[in-house]
Amino acid sequence: MLSAAKFSVGSKCSIRTLTSIATSEPSAPSVSTPIPGPKSKALKDDMAKVHQNPSVKFFIDYEKSFGNYFVDADGNKVLDTFMQISSIPLGYNHPELVALAKDPRLITAAVSRPALGAWPRTDFASLLRNSLIEVMPKGMSGVQTMLCGTSANENAIKAAFIRYQTLKRGGKPPTPADLESCMKHQLPGTPRLSVLGFQGSFHGRSLTMLTCTRSKPIHKVDIPAFDWPIANFPRYKYPLEKHEAHNKQEDEKCLKEVRSIIESRKKEERDVAAVIVEPVQSEGGDYHASPEFFKGLQKICKEHDVAFIVDEVQTGGGASGTFWAFEQWNLPTPPDMVTFSKKLLTGGYYYTEDFRVREGYRIFNTWMGEPTKLVILEKVIEIIKRDNLVEKTRQVGEQLKKELSRLETVYPKNILNVRGLGTLAAFDMHDTQTRDKLIDVALSKGLHIGGCGDFTVRFRPALTYAKKHLEVTLDLLEKSVKSVV
Amino acid sequence: MLSAAKFSVGSKCSIRTLTSIATSEPSAPSVSTPIPGPKSKALKDDMAKVHQNPSVKFFIDYEKSFGNYFVDADGNKVLDTFMQISSIPLGYNHPELVALAKDPRLITAAVSRPALGAWPRTDFASLLRNSLIEVMPKGMSGVQTMLCGTSANENAIKAAFIRYQTLKRGGKPPTPADLESCMKHQLPGTPRLSVLGFQGSFHGRSLTMLTCTRSKPIHKVDIPAFDWPIANFPRYKYPLEKHEAHNKQEDEKCLKEVRSIIESRKKEERDVAAVIVEPVQSEGGDYHASPEFFKGLQKICKEHDVAFIVDEVQTGGGASGTFWAFEQWNLPTPPDMVTFSKKLLTGGYYYTEDFRVREGYRIFNTWMGEPTKLVILEKVIEIIKRDNLVEKTRQVGEQLKKELSRLETVYPKNILNVRGLGTLAAFDMHDTQTRDKLIDVALSKGLHIGGCGDFTVRFRPALTYAKKHLEVTLDLLEKSVKSVV
Repeated sequence: MLSAAKFSVGSKCSIRTLTSIATSEPSAPSVSTPIPGPKSKALKDDMAKVHQNPSVKFFIDYEKSFGNYFVDADGNKVLDTFMQISSIPLGYNHPELVALAKDPRLITAAVSRPALGAWPRTDFASLLRNSLIEVMPKGMSGVQTMLCGTSANENAIKAAFIRYQTLKRGGKPPTPADLESCMKHQLPGTPRLSVLGFQGSFHGRSLTMLTCTRSKPIHKVDIPAFDWPIANFPRYKYPLEKHEAHNKQEDEKCLKEVRSIIESRKKEERDVAAVIVEPVQSEGGDYHASPEFFKGLQKICKEHDVAFIVDEVQTGGGASGTFWAFEQWNLPTPPDMVTFSKKLLTGGYYYTEDFRVREGYRIFNTWMGEPTKLVILEKVIEIIKRDNLVEKTRQVGEQLKKELSRLETVYPKNILNVRGLGTLAAFDMHDTQTRDKLIDVALSKGLHIGGCGDFTVRFRPALTYAKKHLEVTLDLLEKSVKSVV
Repeated sequence: MLSAAKFSVGSKCSIRTLTSIATSEPSAPSVSTPIPGPKSKALKDDMAKVHQNPSVKFFIDYEKSFGNYFVDADGNKVLDTFMQISSIPLGYNHPELVALAKDPRLITAAVSRPALGAWPRTDFASLLRNSLIEVMPKGMSGVQTMLCGTSANENAIKAAFIRYQTLKRGGKPPTPADLESCMKHQLPGTPRLSVLGFQGSFHGRSLTMLTCTRSKPIHKVDIPAFDWPIANFPRYKYPLEKHEAHNKQEDEKCLKEVRSIIESRKKEERDVAAVIVEPVQSEGGDYHASPEFFKGLQKICKEHDVAFIVDEVQTGGGASGTFWAFEQWNLPTPPDMVTFSKKLLTGGYYYTEDFRVREGYRIFNTWMGEPTKLVILEKVIEIIKRDNLVEKTRQVGEQLKKELSRLETVYPKNILNVRGLGTLAAFDMHDTQTRDKLIDVALSKGLHIGGCGDFTVRFRPALTYAKKHLEVTLDLLEKSVKSVV
């Protein structure tokens, strides 16, 4: 039966085989049409007939893409420093990952997908140990897999609510009164708890995570929200070394606000059960905060039994120059939970022992993650360690920031506030229009960069982004800056 | 580089190959240990060290499982009529799906995963046409892919909110006042809209979908909820033909309540923007309702411009005897949105033209689904059509219901209220304890059945469940019933 199967679906005339996948990277970008080109435009019109697509920019031929370069529908070869919104760890079609097509675990996990919460694969713990546990932050107890960043955050805050109420009950499971009242959305079973988020943050797009998210109005408008509190996140002046006093004041002001919100909510019996925060507010505009800020935040959380959840969906996986960005804060104890997705291929969260959920069916759903992702991640982690990619990323990230700072001195009216953590680098421009134009011009020259916030340019390359890619980036970026100013 | 890769991770001593995957079904169940057996128990203890697992029942060796049978960690061969909570369409390791390991699209989509909302694959529309669009309900406009049932429902209700507010604005996009106020969670940008759900329903486990879900307290307790309304869902007496008057009254009573809630919420300026309903309330206890009830529900929704969302996450994909369960209602026009996941391998929703979202980044996230699922689903749909599996499921489902009704006459004190739609069959028992015992005893004899609600047994076999499987099911079920009563 195996030999009878055909692999010609899609384009019916050509037999596709594994050898049709690209195996080398272009030496330089080459662009011969506008982007989107005529083929991308035609594909977008066609797609609209079957799937709404107002955000689609252009189409990529993923079989032809390799390493740090994608090939678009029109054959343009582009250096990609944005990598599917920071979600491809090793670049396109890494050969050792493509080779996993021959691993029976991958296809079995794909076509006989377990309901992981009830009947896991016999090798599930082994898969976890070789992947997510291999990079588990020090001092944490275990991991809970999910499907994406939003479900990671949703379930982390559920675990925080469960733990908050369990503490109130002296460590006991829900009472009959809790169980009965929750079916009517009444106290005590349905508590009036909240999660504290920050201005400028992004934690996902379910209704609840949108409540915590405050990056852009178009994400939130027309959608109902919980009445949950929001605090200011520090807004620093750059370069940091020239603005120490101001930036320290920012930290203090924001921490004071957090403390005040937690205390006043408690008085109103609408307790804050969790604080959720990104190491770098990415979607909101690549805003950084100091280790002191995060240490202070954790301290306030501890004082009030509030869960301290670090959302590493965009920053996790090595791009910051450490595997987890929060490792650079030197916290005295780990965060209560750390959520992840994107470069980790699967969503999920790490928990400390206090946040382990002990009753069945409370953190549960049909799929609860997917073992195919762990089969691939096992190899990704092996490669990251073997090839020393986190340290290499730290080094190339330093170089990137240094070179961007050099450009800032050459174009001081156009490149502002250069900042970075590993290759999570960014700079601001004067306005949205110029920033958008810069991104378009760079793309037309074969460089894909990302935007965020109102006027920020962000870099989110793969961990295989190296010196030769940096050189192309800087060359095309400088040419692009010259042409938009 | 390809040839250098090894496939020995996990159990380090054995080289795994694609030929190690099972290719035939056992002729009968065989059980030689308790389930969970010693190996499953040891695996559960080991798993707890890296991943919380209070709901895990036993472990399955998915490479050894085939068709309608799984093989557990202890080598027990069990006929599976529950199929990973109704999520495996064609049984375990269908050979034509396993053969997709050689399809380059599958591995490329897995290791070079697109951010589908921004840069889709060049073959994305073609993949959709060969899979989800091939089975799109008549009269609908297109599909929006997501990752799971919860994200399908979350995004369908977002589309409903967006459309409700857009109607209020006379078809226009959000105003500057909307955009500004939503960042403060104030009117008009953050509206006080709600979704109406039903007692006994299950729509997922994010905070928002839990608000609409009312099946079991353990899902909801300790978790904050929106103040959204809930209506009663009909509770019929069986057999239906003997209780026509009562059941009709149930329909009318429930519809009257829905209308009353929608009207009173409107007066309070907390409008209901959407009604979400399952064709069969599955998790809540396999409660069915009549086509007349659903027709009446749609009519009320239309009168009040409320979105009528049918949640086919568990019922969709052919198990009901039609590809979508709602096809059996003979609605005058299609539902506004139909959500799906499970047997469709990917989450998502179909929309009618009025619910197409026209502005970018409103229905959006990084992954927005996954093309590997569509590569597999393309083949699944081809097989379902070629092998006439929906009609076969209708036939075997009728037989299953007939035979369960026969058992009901033999064991009238133990098997109650037999009901079914295709193979979505169920019966009640007198209490939770007996129901749970029956499920355990059946498993010990090599038959895996599911529970739902407080005292219900449900069947959720694959579409390849045939007469020979039915015979084993009935034999083991009858033996199990005898031994628990």
